[in-house]
Amino acid sequence: MQDAYTELRDHLRGINKISSAIALLNWDQETMMPPSAGAFRAEQISLLSSLAHERATAPRLEELISACENDAELISQPDIAANLREIRYDYDRSRKLPVELVAELSETGSLALEGWKAAREASDFSKLQPWLEKQIQLNQRKAECYGPPEGGELYDALLQDFEPGMTSAALETIFGPLRDELTVLISRIADADYSPSQAPHQAKVAIDLQKQFNAFVLERIGFDMDAGRLDVSHHPFTSGVGVGDTRLTTRYRDTEFCDSLGSTMHEAGHALYEQGLPKAAFTGQPLSEANSLGIHESQSRLWENQVGRSRQFWRWAHAAAQRIMAPAIDGFSVDELYEAVNTVQPSLIRVESDEATYNLHIMLRFDLERAMIRGELAVADLPAAWNDRMKQDLGLVAPDDASGCMQDIHWAMGAFGYFPTYSLGNLFSSQFWETIIEAMPETPERMAKGEFGELLGWLKEKVHVHGRRFSATQLCLDITGKPLSHRPLMRHLENKLHAIYRLTC
Amino acid sequence: MQDAYTELRDHLRGINKISSAIALLNWDQETMMPPSAGAFRAEQISLLSSLAHERATAPRLEELISACENDAELISQPDIAANLREIRYDYDRSRKLPVELVAELSETGSLALEGWKAAREASDFSKLQPWLEKQIQLNQRKAECYGPPEGGELYDALLQDFEPGMTSAALETIFGPLRDELTVLISRIADADYSPSQAPHQAKVAIDLQKQFNAFVLERIGFDMDAGRLDVSHHPFTSGVGVGDTRLTTRYRDTEFCDSLGSTMHEAGHALYEQGLPKAAFTGQPLSEANSLGIHESQSRLWENQVGRSRQFWRWAHAAAQRIMAPAIDGFSVDELYEAVNTVQPSLIRVESDEATYNLHIMLRFDLERAMIRGELAVADLPAAWNDRMKQDLGLVAPDDASGCMQDIHWAMGAFGYFPTYSLGNLFSSQFWETIIEAMPETPERMAKGEFGELLGWLKEKVHVHGRRFSATQLCLDITGKPLSHRPLMRHLENKLHAIYRLTC
Repeated sequence: MQDAYTELRDHLRGINKISSAIALLNWDQETMMPPSAGAFRAEQISLLSSLAHERATAPRLEELISACENDAELISQPDIAANLREIRYDYDRSRKLPVELVAELSETGSLALEGWKAAREASDFSKLQPWLEKQIQLNQRKAECYGPPEGGELYDALLQDFEPGMTSAALETIFGPLRDELTVLISRIADADYSPSQAPHQAKVAIDLQKQFNAFVLERIGFDMDAGRLDVSHHPFTSGVGVGDTRLTTRYRDTEFCDSLGSTMHEAGHALYEQGLPKAAFTGQPLSEANSLGIHESQSRLWENQVGRSRQFWRWAHAAAQRIMAPAIDGFSVDELYEAVNTVQPSLIRVESDEATYNLHIMLRFDLERAMIRGELAVADLPAAWNDRMKQDLGLVAPDDASGCMQDIHWAMGAFGYFPTYSLGNLFSSQFWETIIEAMPETPERMAKGEFGELLGWLKEKVHVHGRRFSATQLCLDITGKPLSHRPLMRHLENKLHAIYRLTC
Repeated sequence: MQDAYTELRDHLRGINKISSAIALLNWDQETMMPPSAGAFRAEQISLLSSLAHERATAPRLEELISACENDAELISQPDIAANLREIRYDYDRSRKLPVELVAELSETGSLALEGWKAAREASDFSKLQPWLEKQIQLNQRKAECYGPPEGGELYDALLQDFEPGMTSAALETIFGPLRDELTVLISRIADADYSPSQAPHQAKVAIDLQKQFNAFVLERIGFDMDAGRLDVSHHPFTSGVGVGDTRLTTRYRDTEFCDSLGSTMHEAGHALYEQGLPKAAFTGQPLSEANSLGIHESQSRLWENQVGRSRQFWRWAHAAAQRIMAPAIDGFSVDELYEAVNTVQPSLIRVESDEATYNLHIMLRFDLERAMIRGELAVADLPAAWNDRMKQDLGLVAPDDASGCMQDIHWAMGAFGYFPTYSLGNLFSSQFWETIIEAMPETPERMAKGEFGELLGWLKEKVHVHGRRFSATQLCLDITGKPLSHRPLMRHLENKLHAIYRLTC
């Protein structure tokens, strides 16, 4: 039966060769591809995707998995048992959707995306509405095909695509108090007498110098440039292109160098995770794949927020910033930079929002998308529901739907259950961070010296190398000894923001 | 039967989606890929290549071609008839090689390439010898499977892979007098009292400025940057990646800005050809593919030599060079630049040789590879034969085999019959150029004003848009009214070099 497992591994490696070629085609499209190549690129990706899908749902795969599952010696080996469990999960899940539905979802996704672009440009929700209605309907059907997970509702079936093992009931238990406590914190900050100087955000810094600064920080925090690249794209992203090949992007303006560094730190967190996954040893196998979007996001948030928005980080980065980007930022002290990157200011747009208000944007979306999948909120009523919540949660009124319920690509793409993983990332990262500080209290002072090796080593050992060996819930429990809670995130925000905004506790 | 042709076109389009993905993987490997990704990249390319090969040799393809060939209405349409002729040619040819031989050629190619690198590094021919012997043997078998073309010998069967329709007898008829007349010209230059200043080659120019200059010239000669890119790689190359996507590379040193521009002009010639092929209309079909390597090279040589080494070009480029790269080249006149890029100096290395001696390097290789395939020259005797010819033709003695018979990658790769296409490019380009000057005598003066549109338009109309519609021989006859001859190339060299070297005629 060893032969079946060998064939199974080869089969997965073959799929990975195709999917990593697709990853490169996608990366190239966002970073390098000349505009005229766009139409044909879509055809290339579509063909290769269907080849990969064919192999991922091949009947031979079922035979191989079954043969391995029935081999007692094989499944006595923990690596193999974990791999088989996840291979079985993926295979069964992919076979639950009828081919026609997969095709309809894919076609609707492309068309709805075009519809979304046009509707957003015109800020005309009526143009998007039929597409969203179609997406809701298709995703309800998809959820029914999958079936809800144990103890879950229909929406949760979709959530599994992004955060396996999570339910909306569990999310609600955490999100409820998180929203309440965040609202208090944000309102206290709004009433504070002090507010940080925004001068660092306005300083003009030549983009070439920003690039040097970002590349310097990226290497220092431990990104292996021999196994990856840093480039520029309109929307920053990270792609684990293939074995030994992780590519991240950031973006630059001639101001906001902190924002550019923040993007780089965020993507670097994703990229360090991708580099830490054991892709060479387990190519194409679940043991070499990212655990969940929430865990992936925990790595990006940890480097962006716990590291990149800490005073200790800026004590170190300040000197490098001055060395590389002087004289543009000569006038700013460590404290000014630290406070500027921690400014809290409610805003309409999720991707521009600060560390505290960000989670309110997510919880709003979670509630609305869940209500739509449940059939409790009609798509036609989405703009009004959105505006009500925006007023209630953030005290803001959007001037139009383009900066309201049409700002994100996710729903048009057909991704329902994706949004909560962003906040899960913030929650996981804060809870991991408390464990890190307990285990290695010297971490902040090491950051102040530009030493990140111990921290990265801990993340590799505790999170990266495991791939999909454990569920995210189990991983959190194993690492922190506790189930996921909103308190570590709140403590992180309160400790930092009370001090910055001179709030008494 | 229209349906068969539709299916045939779709089939070829599908193959093209895969082969263009391979082209991107290759381009990325040479320009962007981080070093750690190398091993897996080879696996990706190998898998996709086998998928493309499978489709190119599928029995269904034979059925479709036959069905179309038997449809009188279809083959009455010239586009379709030409396409079908070439599709049939490719299919029959690909089916002539047994699968085992294809696999052995591919495997030997990879291993021999490694062997060549090691042997060249150690300058130890004995390390390369067994690989070359294997390659000769395999290529003799390959040639036997193909069978020689009408009126040709075994070597010519291999030549067809690169220059369909050409025979070595025909090459010999041209190469014989070309060698004789070149030898006279080169020896007269060696004895000349005058030699051009080499100062422009030594001028230091910041690489960033060279990049700007190259990009400026590239756009001005007509390369569409919306449908392509210019990047940097160790060995300059051009890849017609896919529909609307042509990418060329060049290289830079902090001196030799003319050399870098020369590389760019050469690759630009290839790239303009790729952009001129009707790839959108005939995706994956022979009508959208390059005619032959000789014709491809004619385009690169024409832009590199007839344009880029003309006095008129430098009358225009001189001002741009001074504007962009001053003060490094402020001191050079148009004539100094023009003469420096036309210096003739026999050298050991083909890729570093000048426009006149270059062809001697090619003819030497053609004679030796033909003798090896014929079994008249043993691989063991190659170094001595090489050195004899180098002494005889160029008057030079190589200090070692690394700068002698091991300098090129081609034979180790298993490419026999490739070399002559380089000189064919020079011959075609010179013969085309005489026709261009006859048809549009104002061309040189337009170049002196930086106007290249009419020239590019002519090349597009006469060469590019035809793809593989006509054989290279037929194309040459149609365009120039004469069969290929060595005289236009000799006239081009003699006219220019007699004047530069102050030789009386």
